[in-house]
Amino acid sequence: MTDTAPEAFDVVDLIRTKRDGGELSTPEIDWLVSRYATGFVGDEQMAALAMAIFLNGMAPREIADLTLAMIASGERMSFEGLGKPTVDKHSTGGVGDKITLPLMPLVASFGVAVPQLSGRGLGHTGGTLDKLESIPGWRAELTNAELREQLRTVGGVVCAAGAELAPADKKLYALRDVTGTVECIPLIASSIMSKKIAEGTDSLVLDVKFGDGSFMGDIDRSRALAETMVRLGEDAGVRTSALLTNMNVPLGFTIGNANEVRESVEVLAGGGPADVVELTVELAREMLRLAGQPDADVEGALASGRAMDTWRAAIRAQGGDPDAPLPVAPETHTVTAERDGVLVEQRALPFGVAAWRLGAGRARKQDPVIHSAGIDLHAKPGDAVRAGQPLFTLHAEDAARFARALDALDGAYEIADAGTEPRTGGPLIAGTVNP
Amino acid sequence: MTDTAPEAFDVVDLIRTKRDGGELSTPEIDWLVSRYATGFVGDEQMAALAMAIFLNGMAPREIADLTLAMIASGERMSFEGLGKPTVDKHSTGGVGDKITLPLMPLVASFGVAVPQLSGRGLGHTGGTLDKLESIPGWRAELTNAELREQLRTVGGVVCAAGAELAPADKKLYALRDVTGTVECIPLIASSIMSKKIAEGTDSLVLDVKFGDGSFMGDIDRSRALAETMVRLGEDAGVRTSALLTNMNVPLGFTIGNANEVRESVEVLAGGGPADVVELTVELAREMLRLAGQPDADVEGALASGRAMDTWRAAIRAQGGDPDAPLPVAPETHTVTAERDGVLVEQRALPFGVAAWRLGAGRARKQDPVIHSAGIDLHAKPGDAVRAGQPLFTLHAEDAARFARALDALDGAYEIADAGTEPRTGGPLIAGTVNP
Repeated sequence: MTDTAPEAFDVVDLIRTKRDGGELSTPEIDWLVSRYATGFVGDEQMAALAMAIFLNGMAPREIADLTLAMIASGERMSFEGLGKPTVDKHSTGGVGDKITLPLMPLVASFGVAVPQLSGRGLGHTGGTLDKLESIPGWRAELTNAELREQLRTVGGVVCAAGAELAPADKKLYALRDVTGTVECIPLIASSIMSKKIAEGTDSLVLDVKFGDGSFMGDIDRSRALAETMVRLGEDAGVRTSALLTNMNVPLGFTIGNANEVRESVEVLAGGGPADVVELTVELAREMLRLAGQPDADVEGALASGRAMDTWRAAIRAQGGDPDAPLPVAPETHTVTAERDGVLVEQRALPFGVAAWRLGAGRARKQDPVIHSAGIDLHAKPGDAVRAGQPLFTLHAEDAARFARALDALDGAYEIADAGTEPRTGGPLIAGTVNP
Repeated sequence: MTDTAPEAFDVVDLIRTKRDGGELSTPEIDWLVSRYATGFVGDEQMAALAMAIFLNGMAPREIADLTLAMIASGERMSFEGLGKPTVDKHSTGGVGDKITLPLMPLVASFGVAVPQLSGRGLGHTGGTLDKLESIPGWRAELTNAELREQLRTVGGVVCAAGAELAPADKKLYALRDVTGTVECIPLIASSIMSKKIAEGTDSLVLDVKFGDGSFMGDIDRSRALAETMVRLGEDAGVRTSALLTNMNVPLGFTIGNANEVRESVEVLAGGGPADVVELTVELAREMLRLAGQPDADVEGALASGRAMDTWRAAIRAQGGDPDAPLPVAPETHTVTAERDGVLVEQRALPFGVAAWRLGAGRARKQDPVIHSAGIDLHAKPGDAVRAGQPLFTLHAEDAARFARALDALDGAYEIADAGTEPRTGGPLIAGTVNP
């Protein structure tokens, strides 16, 4: 309500439009995002708008406009001229989700460029960069020139997304985190896809989680999120598909950082937990299909050590020593089975929270993570157990952390009579979403 | 999500509760308001919460808790020991609403203490303090001791509410203004009533506006707001009632500051516009009824000059000269009737916006108002007019302001054939709300 308005729009009018269930026009969304990036639109105004979007939704056209406006707030990368197709993977985040670590070298070993621009963890879901930083010497920050050179030579990179990629999204993401506006399909979809489209990948496979340890909860909401993101990708010229995967149970036998790297190396050595192998192989197949290699022998690349060679080259290219010992925590606490029976429940969310409380995750962005902290699981749902048998081991730098981690695990697992069906909420891969 | 939480609650959890349609407990609301007052809860978090409250509402118990928490954020005044009952009036704001000016001395002239702690205008509705500051020498800021002394001697005071009264409400009110969360019954009711209860009045009459120039719009929402506020007042031990009054048409013949003071003095002299007199008399009757004088001869106090005597004493007590000439604008622009007929429409909102654009109101809190600026109306809905007859006159310091004021008035009034019913949306006083 200023007397002489130098701006095209009044931010309070735009907030009111969403508040009252209306739609914002393309110029209105462009203006909002650009003015939010410069600070003319305040955090308190964007917070009110985010809550209105959370509660009243956004039309597909608005979500597409929001995504494009966030891309336009920063630089747009291009991998043209590399001489090979690029394909990326994004996971909406889970507990024990180390899939990027074996997946990147596996796919890259087929001559496809895999630029995995990644983030750090916040809350109970771990971050890929945090895990890799367990490896002595490995550095996450690369220049664009270094990234490009590594894609040319090694074929695969996991590195930190530059601050210049969709900066408006970075600002909005941090705001949503403190204002209770995270679990909202229009805001999640535009956040993820703005970064991935700005990155300039040719193809993208999304691993959209559902279940206890995911932040979307039920599979229908996950499917809706996947459909929204696939549409956004395809509309922007990125070949995009999604797997809907089960996050009711932690992935693999490790939750943490260094221990997840160890487990990933086992997979690259041709072993590893069945669920981690299954998801790695299926995502690799889908990425290679989009990259034009539908018949690639993915299992062969694991068995032959070809994927491991690419892993070692990628770690070395970023200053890491693939043979260096990984950090080990001085304190451990093992929980054993109280009775004979079958492990029927192992809930991802409380195990994620427990690992986080042990120091594997951070409460605030500026906090460090403790690479040696985390949880090793010794049994998975469906396994028969005997009284006194180890169920899982907590690892920490300081034994004082065990109590609060064990608090989180109260009721998180259950042993029932032999023959009881485990409660895992169905298969690991529950569906796919294609354009 | 901090590892070791020193605070009783997590603000993001509380935002999520309202977002998902739940209720906040009394300790949760107390914590939120006290932490918002200190800045531990950020503006962006309170903005998200305000939008969630706007869209999902609040239970009566939550509104009462919010009101009490805002009172607890500051000092609580008391007028005990004055030796007379105190009664206050609050209007939700309108166009040409100068009622406080004749009402305060009228009621005070019956030996009742009238502490009218008031605010300044923002947007298209004027502020009582701005109007009174047209009077040379008059000052709005009084110490608590001065306020008390004036209530004892003169009986009535209009002054600025101190910053120590419900400071959390002041902060939240400013936030709502920029985040599109103003027109929300739980937030309006708790904002108004926290200040009035903290002020320590025995009784309170609310003038709750409905119609074009009010910010609630239709009468049903105004009635719901009135009922909520009456309940809050009564629960806090303040005798409270409300009139529901029509704000489709400006009140009286003046919109501005100095011109509204002139019109108020006409009412105190026993004259003035019928609508201003009617509303002043009805509010005075209701205030005196609550103060224990149901049979007070209100019209007599206007006719006899007794109310005028109190007015002059009150103005003098605050440094003002009741006989000093009021400021007059150097530039005027008069709009005349284009045809013969009857004036059937005169919409409050555009006339309020036009007066504001002339300089009578402020766009930002720190702006000054121009006391001489405003609009004088020469006809009211229902009046017969002849082509060429003046309809209204704009007053400004600078003729350059006329164009944008006239833009606001496009379509704001209409002359129809003789015999057409004016569109005023019913009587001035449409109902009352009692406990």
